[in-house]
Amino acid sequence: MANPTAAMLVIGDEILSGRTRDSNLHYLAGELTRVGIDLREARVVADDAAAIVAAVRALSASFDQVFTSGGIGPTHDDITADAVAEAMRARIGHRADAMALLAAHYDRQGVPFNEARQRMARIPDGAVLIDNPISVAPGFSLGNVHVMAGVPTIFEAMVAGLLPRLTGGAPLLSQSLRVMRPEGEIAAAFGALAAQHPDLSMGSYPFSLNGAYGTNLVIRGTDPGQLDAAMVQLMKLFG
Amino acid sequence: MANPTAAMLVIGDEILSGRTRDSNLHYLAGELTRVGIDLREARVVADDAAAIVAAVRALSASFDQVFTSGGIGPTHDDITADAVAEAMRARIGHRADAMALLAAHYDRQGVPFNEARQRMARIPDGAVLIDNPISVAPGFSLGNVHVMAGVPTIFEAMVAGLLPRLTGGAPLLSQSLRVMRPEGEIAAAFGALAAQHPDLSMGSYPFSLNGAYGTNLVIRGTDPGQLDAAMVQLMKLFG
Repeated sequence: MANPTAAMLVIGDEILSGRTRDSNLHYLAGELTRVGIDLREARVVADDAAAIVAAVRALSASFDQVFTSGGIGPTHDDITADAVAEAMRARIGHRADAMALLAAHYDRQGVPFNEARQRMARIPDGAVLIDNPISVAPGFSLGNVHVMAGVPTIFEAMVAGLLPRLTGGAPLLSQSLRVMRPEGEIAAAFGALAAQHPDLSMGSYPFSLNGAYGTNLVIRGTDPGQLDAAMVQLMKLFG
Repeated sequence: MANPTAAMLVIGDEILSGRTRDSNLHYLAGELTRVGIDLREARVVADDAAAIVAAVRALSASFDQVFTSGGIGPTHDDITADAVAEAMRARIGHRADAMALLAAHYDRQGVPFNEARQRMARIPDGAVLIDNPISVAPGFSLGNVHVMAGVPTIFEAMVAGLLPRLTGGAPLLSQSLRVMRPEGEIAAAFGALAAQHPDLSMGSYPFSLNGAYGTNLVIRGTDPGQLDAAMVQLMKLFG
């Protein structure tokens, strides 16, 4: 059976202006590979309601699961929750469960639970909260869209809490061989090997080291037996 | 006058599987900001012809410029040139100018210019070559789509050669203020300031340091006078 598919949506002006280098995509990609959910596409959009709504609708319709990061804090540029609600045609308001979580948190800290902080309790009707063990303000799952924070430590903690709830498939396994020959020299035989194994994905990644060219050959797939058989052939060709 | 808009398309299974962390988006974002081209969206797709064709068509129709990285090497998984040709409804074949460049290069190196290497001379009709000062195999511009290598050093060299050909706008300037107060405390006043300056974009980025919460407040815009005026107000509020 084919693994479930997924897409990621990274939300934030700071990524597209070059101020911040995103790390959440790389983290999520590794985690999804581990649990057998195939990440097929990622998009990055600005803090712009129309762009977020369009991307959420397109990705939610095309993939089994959609993961978003960014835009759920207390400031005016945090518009993800409202945009996702609009995209999924859900109502949104200050939800009692999220208000209670946040009120208790700020009460413990002795700081005012002001209007800006209350914004973080805006959760669409019908959404399930995603736990935030770091700074309390929750993410949420609405249908197949999972809305999480952009701060990497919080994003990672939310992913850790969310993934056990989702049904995965067979983990994507990979093996690789490093060959000190340029890509152009191994391409024909490697391509022929890939054609023999339609269920595996084979990729080649060139590098140069002290002026010499080499290639990392990577084989990926979910069936360990097929993967091992292909690696034996690969070693015979280039090992 | 509004700056030209752009999108980036990152192509490669290795990014979506978590094997490789992309760095080209962050590099391009910084360069485009410098020359005044507004990067509005980025997408990452696998080495899959249908996915590349669909993304190139959507982005080429929506933005002034589209930059791609990845998938232009000699191996079977390098399908970007053919997919971009299909997306833009151009014919593609081994073009004489690219064949000549590559033949001379491999001749100098004394290695065979085999069929796999000749794949890198597949260039759509009507495309303009993008110089590759590192490993010779060229990128190309076809209409508003600029196709470049995925290896970061080569991608960066290609961008450096390409950008002077494109018309930019006013560079996007930014100034920032680091405040040792949590986001929820400064959100109301910061949001009100943002509402006073509709031509500027203001973002807030929380961090924690030794257990204390702080916020980086960033103001971006193309008009230095407006930016300075807003920064004076910001300093009065939180400086």
